[in-house]
Amino acid sequence: MAANTFGTLLTLTTFGESHGEAIGGILDHVPAGLTIDFQAIQNQINRRRPGQSQWVSPRNESDAITFLSGIFEGKTTGTPIGFIIPNADKKSVDYDKIKDAYRPSHADFTYDKKYGFRDYRGGGRSSARETAVRVAAGALVEQLLPNVQITAYVSQIGSIKTDSYQNYVTRSLVDQSEIRCPVPELSQQMLELLTDLKQKGDSVGGVIDCIVKGVPAGLGEPIFDKLHAALGRAMLSINAVKGFEIGSGFQAASMFGSEHNDTFLTDGTTITNHSGGIQGGISNGMDICFRVAFKPVATIMQDQKTINALGEEVVLEAKGRHDPCVVPRAVPIVEAMTALVLADFYLLQKIQSSI
Amino acid sequence: MAANTFGTLLTLTTFGESHGEAIGGILDHVPAGLTIDFQAIQNQINRRRPGQSQWVSPRNESDAITFLSGIFEGKTTGTPIGFIIPNADKKSVDYDKIKDAYRPSHADFTYDKKYGFRDYRGGGRSSARETAVRVAAGALVEQLLPNVQITAYVSQIGSIKTDSYQNYVTRSLVDQSEIRCPVPELSQQMLELLTDLKQKGDSVGGVIDCIVKGVPAGLGEPIFDKLHAALGRAMLSINAVKGFEIGSGFQAASMFGSEHNDTFLTDGTTITNHSGGIQGGISNGMDICFRVAFKPVATIMQDQKTINALGEEVVLEAKGRHDPCVVPRAVPIVEAMTALVLADFYLLQKIQSSI
Amino acid sequence: MAANTFGTLLTLTTFGESHGEAIGGILDHVPAGLTIDFQAIQNQINRRRPGQSQWVSPRNESDAITFLSGIFEGKTTGTPIGFIIPNADKKSVDYDKIKDAYRPSHADFTYDKKYGFRDYRGGGRSSARETAVRVAAGALVEQLLPNVQITAYVSQIGSIKTDSYQNYVTRSLVDQSEIRCPVPELSQQMLELLTDLKQKGDSVGGVIDCIVKGVPAGLGEPIFDKLHAALGRAMLSINAVKGFEIGSGFQAASMFGSEHNDTFLTDGTTITNHSGGIQGGISNGMDICFRVAFKPVATIMQDQKTINALGEEVVLEAKGRHDPCVVPRAVPIVEAMTALVLADFYLLQKIQSSI
Amino acid sequence: MAANTFGTLLTLTTFGESHGEAIGGILDHVPAGLTIDFQAIQNQINRRRPGQSQWVSPRNESDAITFLSGIFEGKTTGTPIGFIIPNADKKSVDYDKIKDAYRPSHADFTYDKKYGFRDYRGGGRSSARETAVRVAAGALVEQLLPNVQITAYVSQIGSIKTDSYQNYVTRSLVDQSEIRCPVPELSQQMLELLTDLKQKGDSVGGVIDCIVKGVPAGLGEPIFDKLHAALGRAMLSINAVKGFEIGSGFQAASMFGSEHNDTFLTDGTTITNHSGGIQGGISNGMDICFRVAFKPVATIMQDQKTINALGEEVVLEAKGRHDPCVVPRAVPIVEAMTALVLADFYLLQKIQSSI
Repeated sequence: MAANTFGTLLTLTTFGESHGEAIGGILDHVPAGLTIDFQAIQNQINRRRPGQSQWVSPRNESDAITFLSGIFEGKTTGTPIGFIIPNADKKSVDYDKIKDAYRPSHADFTYDKKYGFRDYRGGGRSSARETAVRVAAGALVEQLLPNVQITAYVSQIGSIKTDSYQNYVTRSLVDQSEIRCPVPELSQQMLELLTDLKQKGDSVGGVIDCIVKGVPAGLGEPIFDKLHAALGRAMLSINAVKGFEIGSGFQAASMFGSEHNDTFLTDGTTITNHSGGIQGGISNGMDICFRVAFKPVATIMQDQKTINALGEEVVLEAKGRHDPCVVPRAVPIVEAMTALVLADFYLLQKIQSSI
Repeated sequence: MAANTFGTLLTLTTFGESHGEAIGGILDHVPAGLTIDFQAIQNQINRRRPGQSQWVSPRNESDAITFLSGIFEGKTTGTPIGFIIPNADKKSVDYDKIKDAYRPSHADFTYDKKYGFRDYRGGGRSSARETAVRVAAGALVEQLLPNVQITAYVSQIGSIKTDSYQNYVTRSLVDQSEIRCPVPELSQQMLELLTDLKQKGDSVGGVIDCIVKGVPAGLGEPIFDKLHAALGRAMLSINAVKGFEIGSGFQAASMFGSEHNDTFLTDGTTITNHSGGIQGGISNGMDICFRVAFKPVATIMQDQKTINALGEEVVLEAKGRHDPCVVPRAVPIVEAMTALVLADFYLLQKIQSSI
Repeated sequence: MAANTFGTLLTLTTFGESHGEAIGGILDHVPAGLTIDFQAIQNQINRRRPGQSQWVSPRNESDAITFLSGIFEGKTTGTPIGFIIPNADKKSVDYDKIKDAYRPSHADFTYDKKYGFRDYRGGGRSSARETAVRVAAGALVEQLLPNVQITAYVSQIGSIKTDSYQNYVTRSLVDQSEIRCPVPELSQQMLELLTDLKQKGDSVGGVIDCIVKGVPAGLGEPIFDKLHAALGRAMLSINAVKGFEIGSGFQAASMFGSEHNDTFLTDGTTITNHSGGIQGGISNGMDICFRVAFKPVATIMQDQKTINALGEEVVLEAKGRHDPCVVPRAVPIVEAMTALVLADFYLLQKIQSSI
Repeated sequence: MAANTFGTLLTLTTFGESHGEAIGGILDHVPAGLTIDFQAIQNQINRRRPGQSQWVSPRNESDAITFLSGIFEGKTTGTPIGFIIPNADKKSVDYDKIKDAYRPSHADFTYDKKYGFRDYRGGGRSSARETAVRVAAGALVEQLLPNVQITAYVSQIGSIKTDSYQNYVTRSLVDQSEIRCPVPELSQQMLELLTDLKQKGDSVGGVIDCIVKGVPAGLGEPIFDKLHAALGRAMLSINAVKGFEIGSGFQAASMFGSEHNDTFLTDGTTITNHSGGIQGGISNGMDICFRVAFKPVATIMQDQKTINALGEEVVLEAKGRHDPCVVPRAVPIVEAMTALVLADFYLLQKIQSSI
């Protein structure tokens, strides 16, 4: 419960508020000798970055990452990798009006209850800006997993949704859609919905699916650190996430054992993949498939009644820079957290490599 | 990723296989001076125990817990609490036939891939027998939370399900239903379904809902250890769980911000509770409400084709002692894991008590 | 600071009081497939056991260990290894007189201050009985390190002491001395001192040296988990230890750099070994040599003035069963803690095995 | 064994090499609402800084710390405190000659063995420059302990030494001596020794004593995290440290129980303090007193024979900027690590505050 540290062997510790000097982190236990592809890291940061299109927050952050340690002549040294991303476009003035109001379904109220006061500028530590650090770290550790392909995509926005996992996806295919839904007809409907919502000043929820190919059988720990428990925790730690399911997920509740069991072929693969690539908390070599549900963005461009710290009713005139739907930008965050989980378990599994 | 340890401050470390001498655990960092209600612990163990009714596995385990340390004259001493539960009714002979076969949708295959071999008796460490230790520990630490009421219940078996959280539930109300569904008409339908499945030798999935009342605002850590992330991980670590959602959950994906936002009343409560009692990873004082999806039991009383460790096709003649549906017995497990999470965060929050 | 857990990857969690039902522990993350030599474990337990000779406490504990999990058909399974050692010879009646007195230089006073009350029987959790669990665990994990020889021995009792590390020692050589000092003339003098002290009802301190051969270069972590920092913490966690030094130790304070620097030979070894086998926190392939200082046993067979919990003066009439000097029995404890440290770092170093 | 993280609840994670862009760290779990005295932090950094006097390395670092997060309007927010200290005066050219040589009694050889290669500039991560981060963090968390006074001082350089703990010391008294030895006649002799060594291009070891006043009884954990075990580990993690002792330390080995036992007075204090303020791993309210032994600085201004990575003999012509004796600058490092240990245990003890 080192609250700002993720992972056990390969750990990411993060810091930073929305409107401080910089956000950043420290990656520890990255093995020595890995040649870093810096462009690949920046690419993922850019996919999360605000201001990419009309559908995402117009906040203009260049999000240029600086590595401060742990890399020498382009390679990891085995020592901790410190990095920062400056907060270039912070406009504190935007937020002065909400200083004394609890925005509905934000963390203003709970931070005050927990800590006694809060950095109210842009949501402070509770801002999704923090996830830029995760994306940077995930894009780096992903390079430890050369044969693993992690691809997330938007499977639902509002009530527009796909029926099943799209196992054929690649990142480049996903990025052909402005909102990262690889099914063209759905992508089009989603765009229309967002256009409509933008006019109304409203927001909407969504779902991201993630497919991981190339994970060998044997990753995961059997009891409390089951691989899907670690993935679930990682996803639920992303801002606005309300649900997680692996493989058959909630659908499994209405299925019979005789239809749900995945029958083996003689090569150890299974005909169906209701397990989502994990049995007993350990990967079985099949594609790992999971879904992550996001709530609608709480900041909407409509006046809302709320209260302040004194318990007085106030009206919140929403201003600021926010997305009507968070899921297009959350795709690289889901991928990053997946990479962090897998790399950690990948190192842990080396314990079993020989006695 | 201490795989068999749960929690950070208040930790539970467990051991034990289905057919070893005993299962057990160590609870560390339970504060000194707590008077233990041993009967309350045994009651929860009994609720999880096999052989309670015709709907659960007839394996006959008395599940008598013995505390070996950490308690003196009925009170906790602040030192680690070690305890064991003997495996009284282990019939290894039952399992000799499956020694060389990988049971579909069990962990036999993945354990072999991870560790190179396995204790095949009764599923070894992957058996749900391990959860008896969790129930014992959870029932003890729950006593640290005197004003908190944790109540889980069956909300779905197969396609029979409730529409919404049943916030009025109590444990005694839940136990009035043989399968722990507090809605009488649904409970009856579920019983009929299970009767039918028992005849067919099939199994079915289900959902457990959990309502937690009395948690003060301020518990939870804002980034990676969000309270719902910790709960999600805890639930996903239970055998057969495939999904977790908090508050509005997957339903949030199809909602608009203007309807999903929880409007504050002047006392700090909210009119709706789509948040499920948690905002930004921190409790807000409302009821904490979440759902846990379970797959159908993989062991069915039907012959199944499968493979052995050599990759040869074999037919698995299912024998043994298993439930047609796991959710009635999983109710106290969900409660126990909830208690372990909350007690850990409760201790952690003391950091903020004064400087 | 999981107070009763030692190690990060390969963890030992312990429980048990002097006069409870049993003491025991859980070893987690021992790799699968290790064939266990149970006799080697019992041998080390026996070396720590009271009642071996006239110089050690006559408390008669058979100290028979029972493994409850994690081992199948003689081999580790990769799952947690739970074990217990019953407390066979507990005579609570012996301790009723000290129930209300704080024994000088024991932990009675501090436990009361920390926890508000204590299990006063035999020192409760503060008893050195707890170290039997460490010896059992150390003797098991030592088997993961086939080419490493860990040998501790008594180098000082009172003012009788050796001048330098005795690098030729083996356990069988050490055990030729009743008090585990491998230098025969010193061993004889020490025996005479202890005979004298036994008559006087007094106790004396001592020093244990430890030599570790066969550790490859590269173990240890550079900053906070320097190998000698981990060893030092491990040794200082043993009851009655007051000091730790590695290699040249406190002697280094009065040396010049020109004499202290260890000059390399072309094979990477060094002519001198002031480093004690560790540079920058990482093993360099030379013998690891360190010393551990123990205070005199606080329980003496002389009446002592002290106070009770009310702050009243009382006279403590010392009775019970105690050693005049703790170091002979502490030799296997030092070896066990060394093994636990090295095995943990050995697993951790596998991270670097390949990318 | 998160190698670059110190502490469990109140954690410091550090990064940075001697010649990278910057060094820095993240402090997590500092309680909210603490008003930070920034000048006090800078003062301690300045006490460690090179270039303070002729006796310390002339490397000229301004060591200006920048806080990037976790502090708002001068107070801690409860969120992680990220900070950096730029490496202003790095002259990589100085180190090119030693790129291929293993400096005797440095970590060059062991880093190569561990990681396969190393950042050779200024010792990279093994440089004592890293300790500036510890000093900054320690000086901040010390502010959580308002009634605790931590004072370290030089008690020995070469064979010039004090006989006993100087319990009257204060930081201002210590700083009246250019080399931080509070006994004026010894301070003078030490200065003469260092003058002589500087001419000879040699170095010498030393000892730092530390006195902690005001720690209440009850801090520390009884088994593996005994308070002195945590302090010992912390001290042994400082560059060049070879030994640690608490209270009577190695002297205890030659003492009898009847003289070593600390007799209680009726107020709970003890007449003597051989315990060094800790019994059974838990503070007893007396002054905490311990000693830390440092080896002579390995870099000397004399030519030394050594080997390179190919195992070839080479002559190392020492150049660079180094201290003849490390202990004067190490005084604030010892204080910082002490503060980090105490603050962590102070938070942990809050678990016992009430049930």
